[in-house]
Amino acid sequence: MSAIQKNVEAASERYSSGFTKGHLALPPAKKYLVLTCMDARIDPAQAFGIDLGDAHVIRNAGASAHDALRSIVISEQLLGTQEIVLVKHTGCGMLTFTNEDAYGIVDKNLGSEASAELKSRGLDFLPFPELEKAVEADVKYIKETKLIPDSVTVSGWVYEVESGKTRRVV
Amino acid sequence: MSAIQKNVEAASERYSSGFTKGHLALPPAKKYLVLTCMDARIDPAQAFGIDLGDAHVIRNAGASAHDALRSIVISEQLLGTQEIVLVKHTGCGMLTFTNEDAYGIVDKNLGSEASAELKSRGLDFLPFPELEKAVEADVKYIKETKLIPDSVTVSGWVYEVESGKTRRVV
Repeated sequence: MSAIQKNVEAASERYSSGFTKGHLALPPAKKYLVLTCMDARIDPAQAFGIDLGDAHVIRNAGASAHDALRSIVISEQLLGTQEIVLVKHTGCGMLTFTNEDAYGIVDKNLGSEASAELKSRGLDFLPFPELEKAVEADVKYIKETKLIPDSVTVSGWVYEVESGKTRRVV
Repeated sequence: MSAIQKNVEAASERYSSGFTKGHLALPPAKKYLVLTCMDARIDPAQAFGIDLGDAHVIRNAGASAHDALRSIVISEQLLGTQEIVLVKHTGCGMLTFTNEDAYGIVDKNLGSEASAELKSRGLDFLPFPELEKAVEADVKYIKETKLIPDSVTVSGWVYEVESGKTRRVV
């Protein structure tokens, strides 16, 4: 067992020994979802004030709304959420490379078979060159797709990894 | 401003006032990623023992490895993670519907334009009928794709929303 796997088992013992929230219902109590980045420096529960059971939390590289569409539709249509809080962040890795860079790195690190798989999937890594514009673009995308109705409230934010602050953009 | 947006602002003030982690580096310190579900009843930091800065956390509906592939490749190839901890959970919403059900609900709730957009995208909601088999299948998928090298350590787990425990499956 790896050190990381041992850490999961130790956390499980610690957390479950004081656990009192086994009664929570499946649908989020406060009927909203937070979409943010997978970045290791973000703790959504603490930074954005989410109590256990209150909100869905979707996380991917760059807090991409395109990438999250499947999860957002499930959250809203099957589990009743009605508001989206989208949070990208300063110092995001997605600001540091292009699709061309990423394709080159996969080819160099993983070889021609991986490179061929990447190309056959046509995978878009969805990097972005400007943070606040990317927040605006993703909010616009959410408002435009017919799969998310106009009745859903959407806001776009930036979390500052340097200060721990979250500020509204749109 | 909605009550949920006010709550984000209040959390930001509270969290940033005691924030001491502004120095953390972009790449995860412990070089691993956790892939889990967006479910509101999961707090990955507490339940799986993740300190701020240690690991990427990817979350989507059902903890789908297929859906997370873009983020996983970025995490490993661009940000140096080398281990994957995949955690699905009891009582998951993905156990409760089929793609056909979801397409029907979108058509009923959102109308023909949304239904047409869904069909033209060919969106697969990726539900699964059996929990432990789904963990096994996703670990297998991770091991088979050339985009994730064999050197990456992978384990599959189930989090129990009733007890707060996390147990290893594969």
